[in-house]
Amino acid sequence: MLGRGWIALVCLALAAQPAGTLTEQYREVASKLIDAAMVDEGGMEKLSYLCDRIGNRLSGSVGLEKAIAWAAAQMNHDGLVNVATPRVKVPHWVRGNESAALMEPVSKQLTTLGLGGSVATPKKGITADVIPVSSFEDLERKGKPAIDAKIVLFNVPYESYGRTVLYRTAGASRAARLGAVAVLVRSITPISLQSPHTGAVEYQEGAPKIPAAAVTIEDALMIQRLVDAGNTVTVHLEMEAHMLPDAESANVIGEIPGRERPDEVVVIGGHIDSWDVGAGAQDDGTGIITALEAAHLIHQLGLRPRRTLRVVFWTNEENGGAGGLAYRQWIGEGIRTHVAAIEMDGGAEKPAGFGLTTPGESMAALNRVREIGRLLDRIEAGSIQPGGGGADIAPLLREGVPGLAVRTVAAHYFEYHHSRADTVDKVKPEDLRGNIAAMAVMAYVLADMPETLQQTAAGTR
Amino acid sequence: MLGRGWIALVCLALAAQPAGTLTEQYREVASKLIDAAMVDEGGMEKLSYLCDRIGNRLSGSVGLEKAIAWAAAQMNHDGLVNVATPRVKVPHWVRGNESAALMEPVSKQLTTLGLGGSVATPKKGITADVIPVSSFEDLERKGKPAIDAKIVLFNVPYESYGRTVLYRTAGASRAARLGAVAVLVRSITPISLQSPHTGAVEYQEGAPKIPAAAVTIEDALMIQRLVDAGNTVTVHLEMEAHMLPDAESANVIGEIPGRERPDEVVVIGGHIDSWDVGAGAQDDGTGIITALEAAHLIHQLGLRPRRTLRVVFWTNEENGGAGGLAYRQWIGEGIRTHVAAIEMDGGAEKPAGFGLTTPGESMAALNRVREIGRLLDRIEAGSIQPGGGGADIAPLLREGVPGLAVRTVAAHYFEYHHSRADTVDKVKPEDLRGNIAAMAVMAYVLADMPETLQQTAAGTR
Repeated sequence: MLGRGWIALVCLALAAQPAGTLTEQYREVASKLIDAAMVDEGGMEKLSYLCDRIGNRLSGSVGLEKAIAWAAAQMNHDGLVNVATPRVKVPHWVRGNESAALMEPVSKQLTTLGLGGSVATPKKGITADVIPVSSFEDLERKGKPAIDAKIVLFNVPYESYGRTVLYRTAGASRAARLGAVAVLVRSITPISLQSPHTGAVEYQEGAPKIPAAAVTIEDALMIQRLVDAGNTVTVHLEMEAHMLPDAESANVIGEIPGRERPDEVVVIGGHIDSWDVGAGAQDDGTGIITALEAAHLIHQLGLRPRRTLRVVFWTNEENGGAGGLAYRQWIGEGIRTHVAAIEMDGGAEKPAGFGLTTPGESMAALNRVREIGRLLDRIEAGSIQPGGGGADIAPLLREGVPGLAVRTVAAHYFEYHHSRADTVDKVKPEDLRGNIAAMAVMAYVLADMPETLQQTAAGTR
Repeated sequence: MLGRGWIALVCLALAAQPAGTLTEQYREVASKLIDAAMVDEGGMEKLSYLCDRIGNRLSGSVGLEKAIAWAAAQMNHDGLVNVATPRVKVPHWVRGNESAALMEPVSKQLTTLGLGGSVATPKKGITADVIPVSSFEDLERKGKPAIDAKIVLFNVPYESYGRTVLYRTAGASRAARLGAVAVLVRSITPISLQSPHTGAVEYQEGAPKIPAAAVTIEDALMIQRLVDAGNTVTVHLEMEAHMLPDAESANVIGEIPGRERPDEVVVIGGHIDSWDVGAGAQDDGTGIITALEAAHLIHQLGLRPRRTLRVVFWTNEENGGAGGLAYRQWIGEGIRTHVAAIEMDGGAEKPAGFGLTTPGESMAALNRVREIGRLLDRIEAGSIQPGGGGADIAPLLREGVPGLAVRTVAAHYFEYHHSRADTVDKVKPEDLRGNIAAMAVMAYVLADMPETLQQTAAGTR
């Protein structure tokens, strides 16, 4: 009896958990998805339409409204169902006119780009001497006597985006506390052809809000040279930047409903908004188009995963994160059946794999996703590393949803990011296809595999 | 008697021609020059002053006038004598305001930069449909029915500067003959961050003069995508560009007079003018500063070559070549005693060597210069190749003066060239020093060696 009971248990277990790894179980379907993705034309067509015909799409802009309407129509057209555009209130920052010029030791126009969220200068502008600093330590060392009433130039060489971007986000308030009247921030980019890069400034509570603008590497180095040569450098800065009342916007959502467990959801996507320069092609046109086209190919191949695969284009990632928060609210209790979230927001360079974050950093879950990754070895996109997420899915990850980020070779992304050069030509069609393939395979298997990552993690902890 | 006579002849020959190669004869002095150049600070200081304090300097501009005055003073300061600024009449082209915008299928500003020498549009601008072409063959194949009344976009991928620049120089007239009303030329550069590159348009006799502007690679590709997607693309172009009466300008000349044969001259230099964007740092601030600093170091080391070493900053290389022609006139019969001319006009990237042109392509002269080149092997700048010259020394070469061009690794020059990004930061101090070293050694030995290149060539032909 005991023997038979044991055999029966084993049989039950085998029935519940098909034999073999995910790599083996999904080899055929992954192969079909990759084959379809690697000859895909629709991804580039949609990206080109979005970027060339609609263009950039800052929160509150007409461009974003147009993009949202287009995206919902496109989701319907591409076979997604339950297409919805739940409303989201977003901050509405407007750049207005802006200019900066060197006044001393010579007259010369500077190439600047106001930071997103910056306040305006007084109407007549601000004219002040510039004091370059090389780091926050350098700023503090110089202190209030040197900084007071000056325009601080953060002339900090690019190390990595993560390390250097702190000067863009926090520089204004750090300098304002010491009396600075405005800041110029050397653009956060490894290379420049007189290319200013915008991005959000984050004013800290209690610090005076002072105007903040990015300046090109070229102009930052010129000012530094002039100061090093003993000159007093005076700059005149004019910015009309200001906030308007919050604007109406929306997330854009569409689904392939699950065939067995439609209440369980794998959510994939990127952000539909962009900065107000360039075309938002890599940031983050490629993210939303990759997710949409991956779902489109799954639909076209007649595949219907066990769980619901949901595509979300979040709004307002760049300057508020309202879309990610609104999505969290919108799903309500549904978060308990969100089994995974994948965000793509690093451009569509050649894909390398995914980063994974699970509660408790489960090795079992990581290994399970690595089984999926092996399906992508054929296109060299199967490297699964611990650590991944994204600004829009952060509210989900904070509540325990396993989160993944698409990883690429990331060779050039920050050269274009937040600048006028973020245009469609920066996206290689073969790389976009690779990303679509990687997203399609990962999303499909996560939505279809018998056990969720949470179950895998729970089973072994 | 015969034996003694033979020995006497050998002795005479040995006396006339010091033993050994130039490599051996000048090893010590070359070493001193290289040592001095490789710790030089003055070159970067002067380049920074020229570019940061004076800035760009198009023919006819106040910037060029200031640069000429500064250069003459700097030559005097640096120990050159007979400093002169013989007047040169130069074309005076003024850009004025300019803008271009896509009107259909969407409204969008384009990033353009009028080509030097372009005519204006009518005051209200030109609005016309755009027809992209991929080559002159494509243009001719499309023919008058397709081209007439259109704005032609030369969307030609960059191959090399020499091959691709023909579309900038000749495109306007080629298109105008087929009825085009304006041309947009994809910027002649291997890479772009929304970077337009200007440069001269050359209107051909008999063809209508139509406005010509460079457009960025990004915008050229966007227009191409829109047309390929079946859209009619309409552009509105406004340009105020026009010629004024010829302006007064000057070449700037200074010398280290020869100790034995002061009438014989080795002339070295580059062009002092630049386009009206950026700072003219690599094109050709580095050329003139390299020549000046090389002469300065020779002077500082107390070296005085056998012949006169003359530094010339030619004016108006970019849009007329008046400086080169005026120098030829200025020297008159002196051209007979010009023994060599070195032009540097390719930027100061890591130096590789020199190109040499002699009448009849003398191998003996080439081998003699290779003996000098070996002195530069230490800094990997000793590769001497056949073929070299420059726009400013071309009038000398046409009359038989041996001509040399500085050669570099040329990795990035055309990324900055004629654009807003041609600024001091693009020049690596160690590379500028290498160029100064190479120029100093080559110029000094050419000016000091017993036999001229012409004599070497004549002796073996």
